[in-house]
Amino acid sequence: MRMPSTRLLHLNAFLHDIGHHEAAWRLPESNPFDTVNVEHYIGLARLAEAGRFDSVFFADSPSLQNDPRYRPIGILEPTTLLAALAVSTERIGLITTASTSYGEPFELARRFASIDHISGGRAGWNIVTTANRDAALNFGLDDRALHADRYERAEEFVEVAKKLWDSWEDDAPVGDKETGIFADGAKIHAIDHSGKYYRVAGPLNAPRSPQGYPMLVQAGQSESGRSFAARHAEAVFTTQRSLEDGQAFYADMKRRAVKTGRRPEQIVILPGIVPILGSTEAEVREREQAFDEQIIPQYGLFQISKYFDVDLTGAELDAPLPEVPEEDRIEGFKSRSSLVANLARGENLTVRQLLAKLGWGRGHRSFAGTPEQLADTIELWFKHDAADGFNIMPPALPGDLETFVGHVVPELQRRGLFRREYEGSTLRDHYGLERPQSQYAQGEFAGAA
Amino acid sequence: MRMPSTRLLHLNAFLHDIGHHEAAWRLPESNPFDTVNVEHYIGLARLAEAGRFDSVFFADSPSLQNDPRYRPIGILEPTTLLAALAVSTERIGLITTASTSYGEPFELARRFASIDHISGGRAGWNIVTTANRDAALNFGLDDRALHADRYERAEEFVEVAKKLWDSWEDDAPVGDKETGIFADGAKIHAIDHSGKYYRVAGPLNAPRSPQGYPMLVQAGQSESGRSFAARHAEAVFTTQRSLEDGQAFYADMKRRAVKTGRRPEQIVILPGIVPILGSTEAEVREREQAFDEQIIPQYGLFQISKYFDVDLTGAELDAPLPEVPEEDRIEGFKSRSSLVANLARGENLTVRQLLAKLGWGRGHRSFAGTPEQLADTIELWFKHDAADGFNIMPPALPGDLETFVGHVVPELQRRGLFRREYEGSTLRDHYGLERPQSQYAQGEFAGAA
Repeated sequence: MRMPSTRLLHLNAFLHDIGHHEAAWRLPESNPFDTVNVEHYIGLARLAEAGRFDSVFFADSPSLQNDPRYRPIGILEPTTLLAALAVSTERIGLITTASTSYGEPFELARRFASIDHISGGRAGWNIVTTANRDAALNFGLDDRALHADRYERAEEFVEVAKKLWDSWEDDAPVGDKETGIFADGAKIHAIDHSGKYYRVAGPLNAPRSPQGYPMLVQAGQSESGRSFAARHAEAVFTTQRSLEDGQAFYADMKRRAVKTGRRPEQIVILPGIVPILGSTEAEVREREQAFDEQIIPQYGLFQISKYFDVDLTGAELDAPLPEVPEEDRIEGFKSRSSLVANLARGENLTVRQLLAKLGWGRGHRSFAGTPEQLADTIELWFKHDAADGFNIMPPALPGDLETFVGHVVPELQRRGLFRREYEGSTLRDHYGLERPQSQYAQGEFAGAA
Repeated sequence: MRMPSTRLLHLNAFLHDIGHHEAAWRLPESNPFDTVNVEHYIGLARLAEAGRFDSVFFADSPSLQNDPRYRPIGILEPTTLLAALAVSTERIGLITTASTSYGEPFELARRFASIDHISGGRAGWNIVTTANRDAALNFGLDDRALHADRYERAEEFVEVAKKLWDSWEDDAPVGDKETGIFADGAKIHAIDHSGKYYRVAGPLNAPRSPQGYPMLVQAGQSESGRSFAARHAEAVFTTQRSLEDGQAFYADMKRRAVKTGRRPEQIVILPGIVPILGSTEAEVREREQAFDEQIIPQYGLFQISKYFDVDLTGAELDAPLPEVPEEDRIEGFKSRSSLVANLARGENLTVRQLLAKLGWGRGHRSFAGTPEQLADTIELWFKHDAADGFNIMPPALPGDLETFVGHVVPELQRRGLFRREYEGSTLRDHYGLERPQSQYAQGEFAGAA
């Protein structure tokens, strides 16, 4: 791998239906039905590609996890969406969340391999263990598994997936018409996995994909989440609200990765940021207010009830946040719940004020200012070891992505911080990561198909 | 629904990687690596659309079910492929096989709903129970379930899927920006399914799709397969080798459907046909021979071993087919095994001759002749109650689909048997089927979200 002479930052566009702000769908310019409109997403992906983003990303849960009465949360299934975007774009990476708690590794590994083939090597998988209880109820369970068990299962799920992705060596297909040999059987391997959670014979029913396997991403911030990320993640999405917190997390993750034998640049740290942009201070305030006015408290109360696993739907809006369980008693949204509690306590917020803050991206850091001011803070974090890039979370879509691409990207390019053109063709190329080799490619595992 | 004044036939293009003939990849014009090349499939789907086909179709198994040494059988995962084709075509229907034996109904129902949204109502699901043992081994089992159990599970799987697809009534999303009400909670229904195989709470996490749910297709010919199809299938793919057999099957399926309270035209019967075309008899023979010469006996022996669940890989090629188990002792490929045994016995074939015949489409009827002769047999079957249309299985792709679209379609159009333009916009429109209503839309199930 060639290292660029200057370290450049990475940008991921986190595309949350009509926008990260929970009331974005109520803005005059929004179309609330765009959540299931593939043209909406094609437009966004092309816009991000025009802005030379490394990737777009979709979060997901296999359940109707919030309240559909107040927000258009019924969405397209993201692996099918990624496949549609793959043939509608040319260079940009395509990442989606998928859960290790409910599917089958053969099935999911296969879909990601297929998207990697369809996109010419632009697929990425954000590995989640799915914290919400609703999902469990859609898969025959009475409740989600305990936090530690979910991570244990995730570990084995990823192990199986990697074996499947590696089961065809890169040079297994030969396609020799003369002899009638399509593939070298000695280079296609049964995986014969038998573990605590999964038994999978393999091999995968597809040749190895352009990237070998999708780029792996992780976003949990709990102890288990961090140690999982240190072993597997090539990029980490994270919620960091201050430079100091960002630096501490960055240093911790790089240190953990190095401890597992990886190089620090093999794990790319991407804090989230919700940009609220305007060309003057007055314009910025106006934009902020336009969103805040549309908030529906019932929606936010429903959501924080879920984080803390207690019923807060009747909470007094103009009082402080009631007593809520500590992180160590939470089995679902561990990091999210402590982040929200700290936000409320630390800034001494009423419930109403808390909900207004959460409306911008569920606790992610929001930044209100001009494009230059946003570029300043991005540069600051990037140059002071708090970020390798950012997870950009536009509050309303497509509008706020347009503003970012039109005004912030050129500013970052002028400063020499961001690419003007794509150089590689795969998602890993964009993030400066190496293509993984097949674990079976050493020869010692060689056997019959 | 408006009935056309003349009954028109339906055409489905069954796209089997490089072609249905097992040695198609060895022809000079073929690219054996096209199996994982999305551009290959986009080209085929657009070609079929130019030919005004009702639909394209992909078969599937979640396993490497044949021998990859002699045929490029590692393929793209078809739900991701369908999504890619959805945004690459405009009118043609998109059908794929998916198994009810190994996935989770929530997950699969969700993907099909998403493809139906992405395609604007052009998704179809060929429901299979997956007969091959290799698939079971990829999903934690030691063997496939018994035939009857597989169908019992399929029945419940489809019941759950339909509940999920119906869980949002069509008019649940309102998107009222003024009041902040996105959806009418009384029109989004928990399904609370609890059965022998599945417990699923629901609702689905997407609004109801353009078709309500994908068009349902079935292809089993066993007793359980037929009775399942009579209840659920809107189209049936079938293997029929003679007009008489075709008529008997057609009459049987229509009678069974009527017995379950459906109208005969609500189940569309589509026998498979492998067209071997040439403009003269000599050209046709030449084309046949070009394929036959490329056959690799090891591949076919491996395949029939799987059908009969006995090892025939050492069978004498120039002798008759050895003793094989009868259909009632087969737990896997019931209808396929008896079809192959009958073919060998009925036509008194040596193993080599049998393999040559099977090479054309695993026992499906092949037809060698000119475009006019093919149009004649299509018309004959269509007008004599053996078919509502055909499942066209080109032996090599794209070549034989090009020939069909270029020469057979115009002939069928000249005879007034086939559409010249699409009239509707959904897959069900093309097949003259009605859009299903939500089972919750009567009002009596109304409850909270």
